[in-house]
Amino acid sequence: MIRSYRQFSGQNLGRLAALSDGIFAVAMTLLVLNIRLPTAAAPHTQEPIWAAGALAAEATVWNVLVPLAPQLLTYLMSFLTLGIFWAGQQTQLNHFSRSDHRLTWIHLVFLLMVVFMPFSTALLAEFITYRLPMVIYWVNLFLLGMLLFISIEYASHAGLLTAEATKEVVAASRRRIIVYQILYASAALLCVFNTYLAIAALVLFQLNSVVVPRIGPLNRF
Amino acid sequence: MIRSYRQFSGQNLGRLAALSDGIFAVAMTLLVLNIRLPTAAAPHTQEPIWAAGALAAEATVWNVLVPLAPQLLTYLMSFLTLGIFWAGQQTQLNHFSRSDHRLTWIHLVFLLMVVFMPFSTALLAEFITYRLPMVIYWVNLFLLGMLLFISIEYASHAGLLTAEATKEVVAASRRRIIVYQILYASAALLCVFNTYLAIAALVLFQLNSVVVPRIGPLNRF
Amino acid sequence: MIRSYRQFSGQNLGRLAALSDGIFAVAMTLLVLNIRLPTAAAPHTQEPIWAAGALAAEATVWNVLVPLAPQLLTYLMSFLTLGIFWAGQQTQLNHFSRSDHRLTWIHLVFLLMVVFMPFSTALLAEFITYRLPMVIYWVNLFLLGMLLFISIEYASHAGLLTAEATKEVVAASRRRIIVYQILYASAALLCVFNTYLAIAALVLFQLNSVVVPRIGPLNRF
Amino acid sequence: MIRSYRQFSGQNLGRLAALSDGIFAVAMTLLVLNIRLPTAAAPHTQEPIWAAGALAAEATVWNVLVPLAPQLLTYLMSFLTLGIFWAGQQTQLNHFSRSDHRLTWIHLVFLLMVVFMPFSTALLAEFITYRLPMVIYWVNLFLLGMLLFISIEYASHAGLLTAEATKEVVAASRRRIIVYQILYASAALLCVFNTYLAIAALVLFQLNSVVVPRIGPLNRF
Repeated sequence: MIRSYRQFSGQNLGRLAALSDGIFAVAMTLLVLNIRLPTAAAPHTQEPIWAAGALAAEATVWNVLVPLAPQLLTYLMSFLTLGIFWAGQQTQLNHFSRSDHRLTWIHLVFLLMVVFMPFSTALLAEFITYRLPMVIYWVNLFLLGMLLFISIEYASHAGLLTAEATKEVVAASRRRIIVYQILYASAALLCVFNTYLAIAALVLFQLNSVVVPRIGPLNRF
Repeated sequence: MIRSYRQFSGQNLGRLAALSDGIFAVAMTLLVLNIRLPTAAAPHTQEPIWAAGALAAEATVWNVLVPLAPQLLTYLMSFLTLGIFWAGQQTQLNHFSRSDHRLTWIHLVFLLMVVFMPFSTALLAEFITYRLPMVIYWVNLFLLGMLLFISIEYASHAGLLTAEATKEVVAASRRRIIVYQILYASAALLCVFNTYLAIAALVLFQLNSVVVPRIGPLNRF
Repeated sequence: MIRSYRQFSGQNLGRLAALSDGIFAVAMTLLVLNIRLPTAAAPHTQEPIWAAGALAAEATVWNVLVPLAPQLLTYLMSFLTLGIFWAGQQTQLNHFSRSDHRLTWIHLVFLLMVVFMPFSTALLAEFITYRLPMVIYWVNLFLLGMLLFISIEYASHAGLLTAEATKEVVAASRRRIIVYQILYASAALLCVFNTYLAIAALVLFQLNSVVVPRIGPLNRF
Repeated sequence: MIRSYRQFSGQNLGRLAALSDGIFAVAMTLLVLNIRLPTAAAPHTQEPIWAAGALAAEATVWNVLVPLAPQLLTYLMSFLTLGIFWAGQQTQLNHFSRSDHRLTWIHLVFLLMVVFMPFSTALLAEFITYRLPMVIYWVNLFLLGMLLFISIEYASHAGLLTAEATKEVVAASRRRIIVYQILYASAALLCVFNTYLAIAALVLFQLNSVVVPRIGPLNRF
């Protein structure tokens, strides 16, 4: 007997996936809006490249691009972050047989953290030599990981997994989250010395989780 | 015999769901664009954390973040609002066997209200101590609820529901909308005293509808 | 034998629908970004509503909202426009059995016109008492209609329709586009007298195509 | 036996397609945000079109629109570019039977380049008489092509193609990418003389790949 709305709400995995893809897509694209171009240069007559001074004139554009470097750096890191967590969430959703009210909301809070990423990134880019933005960025990263961890834990206890998601698969997912969260935390800690160092370490660990020749023992995660 | 375009238009539930997911995704992400960071701080040389004054320098960032608090607060409330209505619409669409011209437009007007939410939110954040923005926000919330109510009423009269959507299910959906709309209206009324009080009550009722230990008799909705 | 890339490219209707839903979703939501709020009012101490002057203080917000009226008006009209064309394209795609290189590009150009709509709308809102923006808006509307017309013509000649899309269905689709384009053009022509008149007529005809009590002979389209 | 997370991650082609459609949709729509309208003209009393000076008054709007021409031009070119690569990626994904960790990341980097397109476009529009933005734009275009090339190469070596994707199909896809990349590079090289010339050649080759009467020997690609 139907007694409560909660019994039949939020079961559609397809729509959760669609909303997630939409939010990831917008967040990934919004990142680039952080990279603000200064507006119009003075008018400039274009001459063939062999004319005297034609190449030197390009310096105008170069001078505009160089100060954008910290924004580009943080942007690339955040795209990497969002890509990693998109792939992680996708893999999890594939292992669920259906969703329920609570699992839906675990993922909505996860998406809230995704949406927050362009803000954390802009803050970091704007104040790249300060430590507080790095800490906020790391908290964002940490919560993304924790919510995926809570999601797989909840789903396996609530019996929402498919038959293919064996104990081994769940254990591997769990292990991966924990190992990488430890790595991310260590990287972020390097901001005690210097924030650029922390960012470099973060990007390195992220790249390792993606495509680059794997650091020996990390190979398995 | 086909006499009119209306007879065969707007029947695809899948595309209505996809458009909805897209609009919710963009609206949820646009909210964060309301949180505008002040631009570049003065250049700042970074020193190890143990250097004299290194921690104190972080105050610059802190002073930037504190005035953003009302924007963050309204942003979180609106994400919650959109999440609740996304889940509500998703649950309804799951119970429809197909759509028709009118049902499609009921949902398009619903989506218009979704799209309006970032505007209501920005207005509330900008003028958080005024009552008119609170009233506009509540009207937005009320119309979202009413349109879902109209949608389930229309669909059940027009025979667009699946077999799984029994009378009990329809009644539970209807009950939930009415109970929460009464709660939201009562919360919004508190702005007679103070708008922060109204916002706190709204968030409390919303959280109750999501995950938090349920307030006794509300348990069933 | 495969001789050219064109023979096997662009056949996936599902992805065309998904891209379309995404673009419509973003365009519909971007419209609201046109409605720019003036930034922060002077700080303001909030008092209970019965305090002297408490209600009068709300005038500050009211004065901010009134000048936004033309933006709101054009925004609502454009949401209506996009909703109508989204439903129209959806109905067409439902009648296609598959796509091909050319049909895909007809719809990509259609989507270009969709993406252009927020620009036309912003131009109209900013210069609402001028005629040129009205003409540009109408051209945008006209091209949207023409591309759907070209699409159904091409698809029926290239044998891309499903069995359900009988000659009657195609004829009804064609008729609807032509009748409404004639109405839109007549409405736009009213800008010879006054642009507000033209906008009012456009909205009226659009509402007729959606839900409102139908104007006698238009009933059939 | 499951030893590593990589063995079961990133296999869902449907979600990769959905994320791609979302990102393309947002990027295509964001392009139009580059076209910035100057804000409000002076108030203006509207008179019937036959009144003296009524038509002349329209010059105000015309003067606003003319300086937007370079932005419109680059915008159209970039929409065309994104449309071409969307169709190209769609066609490839249709030929994959499933994805894996690496293929997913090849496409995520491809999407990074898609997201970068509005930035390259804005840079080109802002500095249209300079050569460096043209070079950056071309690099963006080149990387988009290279990543699709890498994707088809990887997929065919890793056995991720469907039976329909015969050697002929793979060869035709490869050929198309190479031929058009050579054309694009030649077009971009024309910026040695003049950037407008380079843009014109790019647009011409792109239009050829889409709908226009085909340049003789290019007919086959």
